[in-house]
Parts: sequence; structure tokens; C-alpha cells
Amino acid sequence: MNNVKTQLQSAKAGIITDEMRYVAIYEQLEPEFVRDQIARGKMIIPVNINHKHVKPIGIGSACKCKINANIGNSPTSSDLSCEIGKLKLAVKYGADAVMDLSTGNKIDEIRRAIIENSEVPIGTVPMYEAVELVDQVEDLTVDQLFDVIERHAIQGVDFITVHCGLLRKYIPLAAKRTTGIVSRGGALTARWMQKNDHENPLYVYFDRLLEICRAHDMALSLGDGLRPGSLADASDEAQFAELETLGELTMRSREAGVQVMVEGPGHVPFNQIEMNIKRQIELCDGAPFYVLGPLVTDIAAGYDHINSAIGGTMAAYSGASMLCYVTPKEHLGLPNSEDVRAGVIAHKIAAHAADIALGKPGARDRDDTLSRARYALDWEKQFELMLDPDRAKEYFQEARIDDADSTTHDTKRVCSMCGPKFCAMKTSKELDT
Amino acid sequence: MNNVKTQLQSAKAGIITDEMRYVAIYEQLEPEFVRDQIARGKMIIPVNINHKHVKPIGIGSACKCKINANIGNSPTSSDLSCEIGKLKLAVKYGADAVMDLSTGNKIDEIRRAIIENSEVPIGTVPMYEAVELVDQVEDLTVDQLFDVIERHAIQGVDFITVHCGLLRKYIPLAAKRTTGIVSRGGALTARWMQKNDHENPLYVYFDRLLEICRAHDMALSLGDGLRPGSLADASDEAQFAELETLGELTMRSREAGVQVMVEGPGHVPFNQIEMNIKRQIELCDGAPFYVLGPLVTDIAAGYDHINSAIGGTMAAYSGASMLCYVTPKEHLGLPNSEDVRAGVIAHKIAAHAADIALGKPGARDRDDTLSRARYALDWEKQFELMLDPDRAKEYFQEARIDDADSTTHDTKRVCSMCGPKFCAMKTSKELDT
Repeated sequence: MNNVKTQLQSAKAGIITDEMRYVAIYEQLEPEFVRDQIARGKMIIPVNINHKHVKPIGIGSACKCKINANIGNSPTSSDLSCEIGKLKLAVKYGADAVMDLSTGNKIDEIRRAIIENSEVPIGTVPMYEAVELVDQVEDLTVDQLFDVIERHAIQGVDFITVHCGLLRKYIPLAAKRTTGIVSRGGALTARWMQKNDHENPLYVYFDRLLEICRAHDMALSLGDGLRPGSLADASDEAQFAELETLGELTMRSREAGVQVMVEGPGHVPFNQIEMNIKRQIELCDGAPFYVLGPLVTDIAAGYDHINSAIGGTMAAYSGASMLCYVTPKEHLGLPNSEDVRAGVIAHKIAAHAADIALGKPGARDRDDTLSRARYALDWEKQFELMLDPDRAKEYFQEARIDDADSTTHDTKRVCSMCGPKFCAMKTSKELDT
Repeated sequence: MNNVKTQLQSAKAGIITDEMRYVAIYEQLEPEFVRDQIARGKMIIPVNINHKHVKPIGIGSACKCKINANIGNSPTSSDLSCEIGKLKLAVKYGADAVMDLSTGNKIDEIRRAIIENSEVPIGTVPMYEAVELVDQVEDLTVDQLFDVIERHAIQGVDFITVHCGLLRKYIPLAAKRTTGIVSRGGALTARWMQKNDHENPLYVYFDRLLEICRAHDMALSLGDGLRPGSLADASDEAQFAELETLGELTMRSREAGVQVMVEGPGHVPFNQIEMNIKRQIELCDGAPFYVLGPLVTDIAAGYDHINSAIGGTMAAYSGASMLCYVTPKEHLGLPNSEDVRAGVIAHKIAAHAADIALGKPGARDRDDTLSRARYALDWEKQFELMLDPDRAKEYFQEARIDDADSTTHDTKRVCSMCGPKFCAMKTSKELDT
């Protein structure tokens, strides 16, 4: 064993680390408050000691809501430079964390490059690499799985998704469902357990997992292998049974000094989102909740980034700490660069809207500044403050008034929505008051 | 005067019209319940007697949430065929109503063509045409304004937005704001009042307006000229002062037998949306609420359709009856066809998600059927049931697995998200249960 102290161990020992100070400044919180939140497991700073140049972020309900972008190739598409391109794009548009979900034969090489090139924390799902080692998932040995996990830790992965809470006894509960098990890691784990007549190794050998994590301060993201894949399956027995086990594992992680967050659904009707978050907070004692979506309808393929942003706003408003983005390609295929951009911006809107609604420190400043620039018809300043200045400029140019009559400076400054004669803001500013 | 009975007058007289029966079937409600809702002003069916072939829709909190798409040219862009194209596209993707907001010199011609070509109710903002008659809005006479309104009624416009509630005394309240008056109709009305030293003619001569509406059963949509144009201005004195007047005018409309709905904000933080809807319901005695957005942040230009879908879901969930779409071009320029499509789908998701959350009759059936098809990996059926089958197919094809190894039928049927080897649904279905 080495002498590494995790952020959680330092916090418990009363130490305010550099990472905590960094987070405190960004979040406009007191350093001591940050330390206390981490000590109590309400906030995590996922920074693997082997990930050089990573900028610490705080994930927890006291922090601004974070967003994660999934990238990664498949056995049949994309390559290293393409994935690095997606990483840069995701970060440019505001991703706070990135997960590399690569599958196929270049996983190790791609992950190494992504970690090296990333200033934001990187997450992985080790099971995806583990199953590439074998023909069928059931051929995977426990040692093979843990070897992969340890390699991720040594390489500098900041957090890993592991489906430790999917117990054998929960599989029959999922069999009743409309869409069964839709988590890839969850489905593979279930198959492994059945074919090998063995309980989930990540549950049985959870202490071994904790040891690896603690040695590198790699955070755990407890995956929800039984998240609902349709509205019909939302908030069912299978989902909540697993959540209860995740609550138990959350406590064990904290005791072991390992930072932990918990993953959440999935497909959930809008009216059930708040209940889901409250239940997670209760069962997992306020551990940071990291949600995928939730999607509020099943029929929006091609537009699931919007679907997810709707559910994500409600989830964040109800207490979720990080949103995993969903792209327009969800349910259809792997995202390309444009999809990454659309997914990031959609969830940035969701997270930001929730921060404002919750009155997080300084959350609305940028909106207020932009609105003043809008009323002043100061387009350059508006563009600067927008979430995607490139896109906004492109649309503005595309729709601008460019006929023969509009050569005056003034005309150029109004957009084509109202046109120069009836610009509401111009008219409003000319009123006597 | 003629013998026309408006839907409201019929309902009050205990008559169930064909339109009410039509709406009852679509909404899975009892015809007598529909009649009662209309009689009490909680639901409207905006069908102008002069609009041939219009399919009646019910707007009210007992009905499924409706969405409206704004189209219309500007003095400098688009033409008749382009606007008809937008109309067809909006309806194809699910717009329940369409507003023609044309400005410029071909307004009359475009509106006539849109009404003729439309099976969905058509709305307009007569002020936009009226101001085209004069150099400055203050030159507009009261008769000119009412002549335009009457022409719209005769042509078959099903509902009109009129800013009747913006009283002179409210203008100073808006002067304190970050973004003043951002409603074009509102700003023009304010200027007219100041320059002419006269109260709002649509308020002063409200009975004249009611007479025109009653003669053709053209519904009123009471515009919110003082809707907030930024989060900073949300829920302020100006907004709620006008809303109170709109409540008063709602009662007068109902008494006169004229169907009426009320328009709402605007830019509103997520946490204030429910309060806004409840207040409207109280002040306007449950009149159908027709909201624009609301937008939950000011910084999302280029993606305001997503921004608006987030606020719209919350608004509909809280009781709003119709969502006015916002397109990706909002704040930047007039929408093109692709923008219309994106705007419609985004708000269809919002309205549908709210219907599901509120348990509206049959609202989730399509989701459940699609989810069963999803688990069966039946792509054709999935596409059929999606909100935008064309886009979904396009994305699926773009991302599908087409390498040399994937020529088997089975491989073709999984998408590139998990790939053939680790498709979660396939794995899940193969579990022993």
C-alpha cells in the first residue's frame, strides 16, 4: 500500500487540499464548507493522482450542476484522432467531465490518449474493456475484470462506472419489464451471473475494488444496471431494489475513504422525477446523484437530447449533481461531432437553468449581463456571452436583413425577427418615461 | 348582426355542437363534459365560421396540451410558396395550430392562402398588418385597426392575438426593466398611446372587438404585451398588472359569448413557472393559458427551442393549455423550414411529456407500444411511432454498422450504440427467467 490520501480521507482528517480550495473558488463557496461536504460524502472531487493537469471539479448538490459527455469509438467506427476531436469539442462547449466508452480493439490506446489530452476528469466503464478480452462475457474471470480496473486506475481514470449493486436476486424483477435490462454493463453482468451461477463479483469482492480506488483516489460511480429503459418500467421494484443496494455500498465506500457517487435513471415520466431524486438522497444519504436524462418520453429518437434536457432540468432542480448528456443519436447509433456539440449544449442549458432556479451563487450573472447587452442591441457582447457563439453568429448572419434598403448602421443592428421598422426593443427604448 | 352562435354561446345554451363531439372523441372525453368546460370558459374550440375544412381542436387544461407554430414572412425575406411550405411542414410534424405573423406588403395574400391551405386553426396578430398601412404606428387610426381586425374575421382567422390589457398606466412599470417591452405588439401599442396621448384603443373599444369576434366566432387570444424578455424581468409588477387586466377582459369576453384564451410569458426562471401558471389560473378563472416558452435562461440563442421546451414542459405540467413554439432562430432571425421542424418537434416533446405526467387519457399508449417494439428490435415499427420518423431513419442509417462482418440479418438489426456483440436488449432477452 502507498501513502496516498484520498480527498475524502483528507477531508475527514480536517485537511483542506489544494483541490478543495480550487473548487471553493469556482463554486463561490467557503473552503471549509467544501471540506465538510466532502467529509460527509455529499460532494466529491474526482481527481486520480495519476491524471496530470486535471482541473478539479466538485460534484455535489452544493456545487453548480455538472454535465458529462460520453465519447468513445465502437468496433466498427471512429478512430483515435476522431475521439480526441470529440473530447476537445465537448470541453469547448462546456462538458465538465468526459466518459470514454470505447469498445473494440484499440481501447487502451484511445483511453491513454484521452487522459493525456484532457483537463477535465475522465470516466470509464471497465466492463466494456473486460468483455473484449473474451468471446462470451461468461468466460471472463474475476481476476481479468479486476486487472482491467486496476489498469484504469494506474492510467489515471478519475471515476469508473461499476454495476456493483445488481444482485442475482434482482434479475427476475427485471424479467417482468417492458424493456428488460437496457444498461449494457447491467445486461452483461446479469448474463455473467447466470451463466456462471455466481453472485455479482463487483459486489462479492467490493473491498478489493475499494482498495484499488483508494490507492489512486479513483472515484466510484455506482452504476444503475437496472435503470428503466421505458416509461413503463420507471420507478419499479427492480430499479428501487438495486438502489437500496447502492445505498449500502455508498456507506461502505465512504467508510473506506473512497469517494463515491450514484447513478440514476433512465426513462422517467416528468411527474416521477422529483420523487426519484428524493428517494436516492434518502437511500444514499445525500451522495452526489449522477443521472442519465431522465428521458420524459419514449418516442423522441433523433431528438433525445431535448427529451433528456427536459428531464435533466427537473432532476437537477430536485437535487441531482451531474447530468450525463444524451445526444440526438440516442437509441439510434453512436454520436458524431455535431451530435456531441448538440448534446453538450442541451445539457448545459438544463444544468444552468437548474442552477438559476436553485439560486446557486452567481448563477444568473451571465444571463443578466447578456440581457443588458440584448436591450442595448450590442450583438458582439451578446455573442460572447452565449453558450454557443459560433452557432448564434451563423444563424444571425443567415437570417440578417441584407436587402438594398438596409445599408444604414442602425438597420444592420436589428435582426430579421421584427425588422428595422418594428424592432420591439428599439420601440421600447424610445418611449418617454 | 347575423344569427351565428359561437361555440361558447351554444355550450351555454346546452347545445353539444359537431365540433364539441369531434373534440370529445380526439380527447377521449365525454361530449357533455366538453360542452360544460366550454360553457365555463375553461376550454375553447377556435373555429371561425368562415374557415372551411378546419379540423376543430380543443384548447384547455382538460385536453391534451396543444402546440402552435408561428410562420410568416418579413418585409425582406420569404414568399408565398415558402410560407405554405412551412405551414405543411409544421402540420406534418404535429403543430395543432399555426399563427401567420407575416409583415411586409403581401400580408393579405399570404394569409388568404394559408387559411385556404390549412386544416388547423390559424391565428394572426392584426396589429402587424395595421402598422404596415402607416409610416409610424402613431398615425394609425382606430378605424384602420378595427377594419383590419374585421377583415381577418371575415377571411376566416380562427384566433387573434390582441394586446388589450396593456394600459397606459403600466408603461412606467416597464421602464424599470432590464429589457423593457419585448413584445412587438406591446411596444407598438405603448408607442401609439404615448404619441397620441390616448388609452389603448383595444381596451377602450373592447366591446367593438367582441362584436366582430362574436359575429364570426373568432376567438380572442389576449396578448401579454408586458411579458418579461429576460429572467431579470420575470414575475414583475408590470407583468402581473397587465395579467390582472387580462383577467377582467376574460370575464367580459365570456359574458359576451366570445371564446377567449390568455397568453403568458416569456423568460421565466424554472422555479417561478408553476407560480406563474397558478396565478394566471386564479386571475383569469381557469381560462386556457397559451404560453410562449417560457425560456429558462437568457444565454441559449441558437438553441432556444430546447430552452423553451424545458420551460414549456413545466408550464404544461402546471396547467398551461397550449405552447407556442420557439425555434432555434429565436433572438436571431426568422425561422426557415428546418427551424420550423426543430421547433415543432421540441414542443411536441414538451406537450407530450406533460400529458403523460398529468395522466391525460391514452397519453402514454404510443410510448408503450414503441417501447415494446424497441425491445423486440423491430425497427420499422419503432420508426412509425416516432415523432420524426424521417430524422430517426436518417440517423440510424448514418450510424449503422456496415462493416464486412455484419452481413447477417441479426447484426443489421442492432444499432451501433452497443454493437452486435453487446446489445443490452439482446443480452437481456437471452437471460433465463
